Amino acid sequence: MLIDALQFSKPGRERFQEWRDAGLAAVHVTTAIWEDSTETMRELGRWQRLLTEHADLLTEGRGADDIRAAKAEGRTAVVFGFQNSTPFEDDLDLVGAFHQAGVRIAQLTYNTQNSAGAGCWEHEDTGLSRTYGVNLIREMNQVGMLVDVSHCNERTCLEAFEASEKPVAITHANPRDYVGGDVELAVRNKSADVLKTMAQQDGVIGLSMYPRLAPNGTDCSLDDFCDMVAWTVDLIGVDHVGLGSDFYTGHGDEELVWWRQGRWSRSPMVPISGVVEFPGWFDAAKGYRDVLDGLRKRGMTDEEVAKVAGENWLRLFDATFGTFHKQAG
Amino acid sequence: MLIDALQFSKPGRERFQEWRDAGLAAVHVTTAIWEDSTETMRELGRWQRLLTEHADLLTEGRGADDIRAAKAEGRTAVVFGFQNSTPFEDDLDLVGAFHQAGVRIAQLTYNTQNSAGAGCWEHEDTGLSRTYGVNLIREMNQVGMLVDVSHCNERTCLEAFEASEKPVAITHANPRDYVGGDVELAVRNKSADVLKTMAQQDGVIGLSMYPRLAPNGTDCSLDDFCDMVAWTVDLIGVDHVGLGSDFYTGHGDEELVWWRQGRWSRSPMVPISGVVEFPGWFDAAKGYRDVLDGLRKRGMTDEEVAKVAGENWLRLFDATFGTFHKQAG
Repeated sequence: MLIDALQFSKPGRERFQEWRDAGLAAVHVTTAIWEDSTETMRELGRWQRLLTEHADLLTEGRGADDIRAAKAEGRTAVVFGFQNSTPFEDDLDLVGAFHQAGVRIAQLTYNTQNSAGAGCWEHEDTGLSRTYGVNLIREMNQVGMLVDVSHCNERTCLEAFEASEKPVAITHANPRDYVGGDVELAVRNKSADVLKTMAQQDGVIGLSMYPRLAPNGTDCSLDDFCDMVAWTVDLIGVDHVGLGSDFYTGHGDEELVWWRQGRWSRSPMVPISGVVEFPGWFDAAKGYRDVLDGLRKRGMTDEEVAKVAGENWLRLFDATFGTFHKQAG
Repeated sequence: MLIDALQFSKPGRERFQEWRDAGLAAVHVTTAIWEDSTETMRELGRWQRLLTEHADLLTEGRGADDIRAAKAEGRTAVVFGFQNSTPFEDDLDLVGAFHQAGVRIAQLTYNTQNSAGAGCWEHEDTGLSRTYGVNLIREMNQVGMLVDVSHCNERTCLEAFEASEKPVAITHANPRDYVGGDVELAVRNKSADVLKTMAQQDGVIGLSMYPRLAPNGTDCSLDDFCDMVAWTVDLIGVDHVGLGSDFYTGHGDEELVWWRQGRWSRSPMVPISGVVEFPGWFDAAKGYRDVLDGLRKRGMTDEEVAKVAGENWLRLFDATFGTFHKQAG
């Protein structure tokens, strides 16, 4: 059971074939960064067309059972998610509406402050709003949408854990204490406090090979990555660590500019250094297997490796995705 | 020159006639609270229709000169504003677009946190976002839209003053130190620190008879109000005090619920105690004159009373409203 808890490549058959070659039972894909509700519905519509056109390779992952079925059928379940809460437009009813449309995971914020909370580029003392932020998490808990705090700042993460009645995910980030402050987007990584609190609530972090967050940055080796996985397992336990590569390819500078500054800025706050090259060893098809082999070499049992590979995500999805209209409160 | 820097009554000829009877040269009206860009454009369209239908009483106030002309013609200039930045949808281009559509004043936030800053119902340590918040103020400065922090919390006010190159308004609020903590919405009132910093930058506060903010609350007398005006003039100087009644009438509970909780909550965070009764002495047509008489009785000169009545707002509008397509940076 292999699951990647975040990829954001330009979708197309080449990618979908890679997913199959890698043996991925599920990939969480991004359908919104700064988009509003209408723009996001259009993107979901484009994905529905892709699911139909490439039904030999893909299926939709609305629940953990869809992922189990996908694995059995030799297909990859696509789990739809947002990297920001902009599509909800501060309207609680839109949370249920997007759940109906298939969305199962949403970050409260991207890198900046919004009505719900604060991203990692803001001051550290700004957190979850006690108004919409608390209500949004309650609504997501209720309709069955997994709360993701991957890009939130420290205080928003901690307050989100407190506000959520269900476990919370960090789909793609790394431990700050391990990686250190030298990587380009070090501020995106998570403190030990955040990781431990997430784990206490039975949440899961997806560790990433994204060079701007990874140990040794662009020089991150397979060993560097596996060492980080082992270190994180030691810190918070093997039940709370998974993979969330943040892998992307196929996008140009225009998309990068959109991700970095949306429409809220006329210039980048963080230098835009071009589309990133992922480490050579992280071949989209083969890289996952090499990581899992590396973990076995570090003394992890098959059962432990299976948890990191995907079983932890499956447990979390079972606990948080509502697969029906609305879950009972 | 009499200007009310905020009224939010249901618009109609009865109100417009009252404005004329009061001798109001300008009224700043609210066209958005939680509305998005499309909803706000529709509201502005409804107002354009009203301006046409009631052109004997009304004109549009896009610049201070429009207000001077309105006074000379015996009409009231309507100045369009927002009590929140939701219509901009975090898109800097929409600031200029709404300026083109006639909007000249906008609050950064209503009562809650958004991408730009935090309202008075949030934690006090959440402030202006260093991302969109700073950029939004720069854009408003540039296109000629007055920044209003009436509903912002302490830190957001102070950081907005710092970020703005032009004076900032508090169109409707009262001094917290004078009114005290017993009124229903005491948290909406402003600290001495905020008032002084605003004044140093040549901003203006509009003092309000709204019983939930006013001295002695629902029992606020004409004397109570005039004493507060005099106290505020003593604190920050006569150049920085004006009127901003926050007067409203004609709305029902449904509108109150919308103002208080938008779509971001399913229940009120602050009890909804019904549509407010303004003090009996604040008759919409005669109340302003009684206040100005009361100030004269407290020893203010005609020149000083004129400043409070409207000249201060006119100076601030001259300094901040762009009347052309775009002002030079």
